[in-house]
Amino acid sequence: MPTVYVTAPPDAADELARTLVEERLAACVNRVASDSVYRWDGEVHDESETILLAKTTAERYDELRDRIEALHPHDVPCIERFDESDVLPAYASWVDASTSEET
Amino acid sequence: MPTVYVTAPPDAADELARTLVEERLAACVNRVASDSVYRWDGEVHDESETILLAKTTAERYDELRDRIEALHPHDVPCIERFDESDVLPAYASWVDASTSEET
Amino acid sequence: MPTVYVTAPPDAADELARTLVEERLAACVNRVASDSVYRWDGEVHDESETILLAKTTAERYDELRDRIEALHPHDVPCIERFDESDVLPAYASWVDASTSEET
Repeated sequence: MPTVYVTAPPDAADELARTLVEERLAACVNRVASDSVYRWDGEVHDESETILLAKTTAERYDELRDRIEALHPHDVPCIERFDESDVLPAYASWVDASTSEET
Repeated sequence: MPTVYVTAPPDAADELARTLVEERLAACVNRVASDSVYRWDGEVHDESETILLAKTTAERYDELRDRIEALHPHDVPCIERFDESDVLPAYASWVDASTSEET
Repeated sequence: MPTVYVTAPPDAADELARTLVEERLAACVNRVASDSVYRWDGEVHDESETILLAKTTAERYDELRDRIEALHPHDVPCIERFDESDVLPAYASWVDASTSEET
């Protein structure tokens, strides 16, 4: 059951997170404020970024990743998948249900 | 050596984290402020949650998970285990010692 | 492609993060404010810590870990490696390039 680690500009993060939940690509997205230092075009930069931690299913992961890439304002977004080694079964069921098509 | 990712209401997070350390179920719990967007009963909600990152041992994990489930104010808490692929040996020894019964 | 989870005192975190990027040991370091409860010398403590999430390559990981250990103000720092199960290829290429020696 993947947790997807994404970074986004703070002014784009809320809408990105909400869209993923509204489109049932993620059951939940936690948004965390951060400061990021990174190298771009040879220069070291330091600026605010929001970390998004999106909870989804293995079945939905590819679609989630493609949608983030399409919506993200950056050309090379950080999108990384981490898989847990254990999860509370009731929580896993909730993620499944929240990312399934309405019937 | 598991890191356990838990989300909790901000007003319950501090006591939950402290209890886990006091009972030697975790050596350390990092608490991070976040905003969470999620689907519940068909509606999309957005509210503050605290992310807890609890550092424990493989031996203590089951007991930690059960204790979080018992203490948590929600019926379906997010409790997920992630295992690292490397850890500083001195840090691992400290986690071991901090989660062992006092002798 | 490792994400390295480090905790550091807030007054040391910014310089530590910047040094890792300047020395090309990490492409990016996200810094997140947190409060940590932990056991030390038998007593339970609670204080502010900054979580660093450093993005690097498998090739650079050992050097990054050793450098953090050398620079970190604590004797037993939390340094843990987590490996993702998927990453956007363009992002992986950027991490590779940002941690390679200049030519």
